[in-house]
Amino acid sequence: MENIHGGDIYKYQPQYDFSANINPLGTHEAILQAARDSLLDIASYPDVRCGRLRSALSLKISVPEEYLYFGNGAADVLFTLVLARKPKSALLISPTFAEYEQALHSIDCDIRYFQLNATTGFTITENYLTFLTPDLDMIILCNPNNPVGNTISHELLLQILRRCLELNITMVVDECFNDFLDNREYHQLTKELDEHNNLVLLRAFTKMYAMAGLRLGYLMTSNYELLAKMNNVSQPWSVSIPAQAAGEVALNQDQYVTRTKNCIKREREYLCKELEALGIHYFEPEANYIFFYDQLDWKKELIREGILIRDCSNYLGLSKGYYRIAIRTRLENEVLIKAMRKIKGRA
Amino acid sequence: MENIHGGDIYKYQPQYDFSANINPLGTHEAILQAARDSLLDIASYPDVRCGRLRSALSLKISVPEEYLYFGNGAADVLFTLVLARKPKSALLISPTFAEYEQALHSIDCDIRYFQLNATTGFTITENYLTFLTPDLDMIILCNPNNPVGNTISHELLLQILRRCLELNITMVVDECFNDFLDNREYHQLTKELDEHNNLVLLRAFTKMYAMAGLRLGYLMTSNYELLAKMNNVSQPWSVSIPAQAAGEVALNQDQYVTRTKNCIKREREYLCKELEALGIHYFEPEANYIFFYDQLDWKKELIREGILIRDCSNYLGLSKGYYRIAIRTRLENEVLIKAMRKIKGRA
Repeated sequence: MENIHGGDIYKYQPQYDFSANINPLGTHEAILQAARDSLLDIASYPDVRCGRLRSALSLKISVPEEYLYFGNGAADVLFTLVLARKPKSALLISPTFAEYEQALHSIDCDIRYFQLNATTGFTITENYLTFLTPDLDMIILCNPNNPVGNTISHELLLQILRRCLELNITMVVDECFNDFLDNREYHQLTKELDEHNNLVLLRAFTKMYAMAGLRLGYLMTSNYELLAKMNNVSQPWSVSIPAQAAGEVALNQDQYVTRTKNCIKREREYLCKELEALGIHYFEPEANYIFFYDQLDWKKELIREGILIRDCSNYLGLSKGYYRIAIRTRLENEVLIKAMRKIKGRA
Repeated sequence: MENIHGGDIYKYQPQYDFSANINPLGTHEAILQAARDSLLDIASYPDVRCGRLRSALSLKISVPEEYLYFGNGAADVLFTLVLARKPKSALLISPTFAEYEQALHSIDCDIRYFQLNATTGFTITENYLTFLTPDLDMIILCNPNNPVGNTISHELLLQILRRCLELNITMVVDECFNDFLDNREYHQLTKELDEHNNLVLLRAFTKMYAMAGLRLGYLMTSNYELLAKMNNVSQPWSVSIPAQAAGEVALNQDQYVTRTKNCIKREREYLCKELEALGIHYFEPEANYIFFYDQLDWKKELIREGILIRDCSNYLGLSKGYYRIAIRTRLENEVLIKAMRKIKGRA
């Protein structure tokens, strides 16, 4: 029951939460209204097909309806995918999002790791290709990676994809934080789905649309056999009525997405400048969070100031000294920086 | 993607839904209000521990907090249980709720069936005990059974429990419709949990509290090892914020539960009397639904009248002619009976 993830606001009850990478502008009123209105229907079971949400998303991202699978958050989709595909052997990068390992362990999969390291800025290098061997059933990549916040070279990603197709390896790319990249479409693999039925893309509504508490994620693949298996190994009613309703309306909020991205870009620059001034070594962030290394026990120090950040020392491949902070609004970011300055002066 | 369950109101868009066994009084306003208020917090992840709901439920049903596991509906809990326990061999009754079979298939479990039959009113007999052999890892019983609506003799249930403990068989009892029984506490196995760590009880909020679209179920067991495994093979955020909030408030609605049970009891008698007058053979119902056999194609005929019922012919162990109807309010029940009279007259 111990929460291995960040964001345990229920335990720490912080005044400011920098531990979860959620849109700092909060949930849009139109999304809240749609969820609110939908509550009048909750006596009924949810639509198993997520029909309206499916049509809306298909139109929005130009992916066939039949490629989509919805779940109770991206984590639910991931566990279902792994249970359906049942890989015997899988390759993960390290460090990365901890749920991949947990999902693979749930079906007793043998896991290998491609170790990223600080000297190369935790970047995936071409050397990764040599790890792709015929005995592998699945690889999982996170683009941009979590907690590092960097993207994988698009050329390398395509090389990996081609090699995986040749070797019959299912390639899962978690694009849950793609929404926050400056050049998001360039980094997406959506257009490769048709030609590569070994490709699976994972996405979430929870981060960009600030609906983590409502749970909504999905995946895309042109592999109908895999999708049928996923339906067979999961309950039919995994996406609640308010999540379906909120998701459908979220897709209309283009202005809010633009405002969010502008805010993230501006605040990313602000926070980087301030961290640098504090003499803290951060890794170049591309999404809505910043990964840094520093000797000070920042989590302990900041929680005294009512600020929760993510201590990344329990990530496989990391050690004491690695932290992740979400990029929030200017007001919140100033509170964080002020507290960090105070702590640095005292330390 | 084909829905093997009843209740596909999204496909048929019926005026009256008798296919899902939900509280006919609808969602209580206090539950709706709690869900509505909780939406303001959905930017955050849900409480992994379901802390407040856990405390409230523990107090309400006098079961230790540590025995409880919450999920995204009882179906989610069931799939997680099966994935954690990984039974190689399991015994089901037939007919029964189809998700048990689906969950067991998801981990490639070998399934045997104890066949119930019409001549004994689809009742579990003592002969079931002879099916409990040392090579079994799990049995799943549904009490009251779905779609039949009858309970298992309490004495037999205790005999089965003792035998399963001796043979190290995990005994899962789905008590999701226990809430609707006249003598609900008598039929519960809650008080056996302490002494039998092979016992797992499955429950739902969705039926009694009419929140099927919000998804909330749980299980109870004193087997801490099993509970730890369940946490390991599932995502931590499976219960949404509105589901947790609604569940907590639902536990206070004693008057609404009493009103519901009075309504169900009264309407059960009414519908039985009317079915009998129509010459339709029903099986004595104990919960909030009625299972019957008749040669007429009732689903096809009734959908023309805007009424959706559950055709049970696709249940393993049943054939064409078996149907299930939910017990609804008098107004709705009268509409159903009137339509059935009309169809009978015409047939």
